[in-house]
Amino acid sequence: MTGLMNGLWLHDRQLSLQSDIPKPEPKPGEAIVKVLRAGVCNTDLELTRGYYPYSGILGHEFVGVVEEGPAEWLNQRVVGEINASCGTCEFCQKGIRTHCLDRTVLGIVNRNGAFADYLSLPIANLHPVPASVSTDAATFTEPLAAALAILTQVEITPNHRVLIVGDGKLGLLVAQAIATTGCEVLAIGRHASKLQLLKDCGIQTGFASDIKAGSFDVAVECTGNPAGFAIALDALKARGTLVLKSTYAGKLTLDAARIVVDEIKLVGSRCGAFGPALTLLESGKVSVLPMVQARFELQDGLAAIDRASQKGTLKVLLEMG
Amino acid sequence: MTGLMNGLWLHDRQLSLQSDIPKPEPKPGEAIVKVLRAGVCNTDLELTRGYYPYSGILGHEFVGVVEEGPAEWLNQRVVGEINASCGTCEFCQKGIRTHCLDRTVLGIVNRNGAFADYLSLPIANLHPVPASVSTDAATFTEPLAAALAILTQVEITPNHRVLIVGDGKLGLLVAQAIATTGCEVLAIGRHASKLQLLKDCGIQTGFASDIKAGSFDVAVECTGNPAGFAIALDALKARGTLVLKSTYAGKLTLDAARIVVDEIKLVGSRCGAFGPALTLLESGKVSVLPMVQARFELQDGLAAIDRASQKGTLKVLLEMG
Repeated sequence: MTGLMNGLWLHDRQLSLQSDIPKPEPKPGEAIVKVLRAGVCNTDLELTRGYYPYSGILGHEFVGVVEEGPAEWLNQRVVGEINASCGTCEFCQKGIRTHCLDRTVLGIVNRNGAFADYLSLPIANLHPVPASVSTDAATFTEPLAAALAILTQVEITPNHRVLIVGDGKLGLLVAQAIATTGCEVLAIGRHASKLQLLKDCGIQTGFASDIKAGSFDVAVECTGNPAGFAIALDALKARGTLVLKSTYAGKLTLDAARIVVDEIKLVGSRCGAFGPALTLLESGKVSVLPMVQARFELQDGLAAIDRASQKGTLKVLLEMG
Repeated sequence: MTGLMNGLWLHDRQLSLQSDIPKPEPKPGEAIVKVLRAGVCNTDLELTRGYYPYSGILGHEFVGVVEEGPAEWLNQRVVGEINASCGTCEFCQKGIRTHCLDRTVLGIVNRNGAFADYLSLPIANLHPVPASVSTDAATFTEPLAAALAILTQVEITPNHRVLIVGDGKLGLLVAQAIATTGCEVLAIGRHASKLQLLKDCGIQTGFASDIKAGSFDVAVECTGNPAGFAIALDALKARGTLVLKSTYAGKLTLDAARIVVDEIKLVGSRCGAFGPALTLLESGKVSVLPMVQARFELQDGLAAIDRASQKGTLKVLLEMG
């Protein structure tokens, strides 16, 4: 089963399509997954801009089929949590495996990613995709899990008013994830066409100019830029919570006096558990497929990244095999 | 009882000693307090630099004697919570009176402060000073309450490692407040002589160079400058909590990627309840008197502010009457 495969390889901020990457060898406890579909995330784009010095195959949102691994997993359609943990460090012992001190992260830290014919992940990271969830929809498991992680970090009840800042890929998922709590959600952005996707789900949308300062209990910053952060901070009531969900490539400058005087809480939020995301996808209560704006074959992967880099693009999918 | 009084008056960033300020008139529900002692806080200094556009008598840390008010309060030695609240707004209804939307704040927002012969505060804000607590020590009630507020915002257990950044007035109180939890405390600063005050209380001290990155569960930033913030952030483990305790006059620039990737929590912290602070002062388990470095008569109030503004100065007290 060994041999060569295709993949989008990042090195020194240069992305290239390579056709002679050795297919991964199965390691103890890991499975080899043939990738069916992969999604391009903003973090992929940030990595190509040098946000973090990663070398290897890019990509971490995927659906695949187990080709090598324990018998009960073979030929199963799966998604996979992206943090591979050591199991022994302080964080693993506490059960916080996403913060394992020796972790590798699929397509992000020391582990080849999903923009390839095959990938390797610990079997413990894999989740079967329910039959009723399409492969396209399941590609959203990872970012939807990240969106749902907010609900494990911040208490949101039906009495809360929550603002989502940003109508990009992440903002649209976060708005839908937060809306499952029954709270009052307002999602703001700059593109009526994207906000329409949320309107179609019954979520209230608007623009920054619609916001009354000091009127939200929680604000989730999904733009990754300082202007979005300032809008989110300004919108919060005293004792409010600002969730930082986007990866920031640069430094962020903020009004610290506001944070102290109004006792604002800032919460960084990264990955989430896949179980709740798959359950939500299975329920049909989130709408992800309208976010797909373009599809490319892996062979046209560079064009896919170009397309995803164009301002205003929602999800770009790569189709393998 | 009406007449004129002395006070340190701030207007347009200019502080002056005035001897013809009308003595406050008692309003319904308020008491007139003859000020005995007042402490100079960094916030006072920030206000003279224009941190917030306040006009009026400066000062919010005080001990006084009730001169006009309900019979049971007359002649009592008191301290007073500094936020005077409306009782009817959203925050007052929730019992979060320090965030009252219509609040005035003693010597900070629309209410004449304590650097004067007399002040006026709602009776609901007053607390009798226990007989065993000296007037000098009781002057620390307000900043000690602010330090103790951290324990109501962040869970700190004996298993936690907590870093205090800054050996100024606030840092020394915060270190002692946090140490009451039985956790492992390290207080760092730049002045061996100030850190000695904590060593004398059995608290571990050091310098920034002593810190291993990623080794603390909680860090409390008490310097009010970006360098202190960066040290605190760097010291935190993943999922750690950074408490912002100092007033920041300017903007703060931070590494937002660290906050997102390591899911750091930032918590702004301002005022605290006086009850626990008075109890702690009464217990004798905090050492505040060694922090007093200079005393001035109210008549020499401008010199007191000058002295407090000198780098490295701990507490400066004003003595009235």
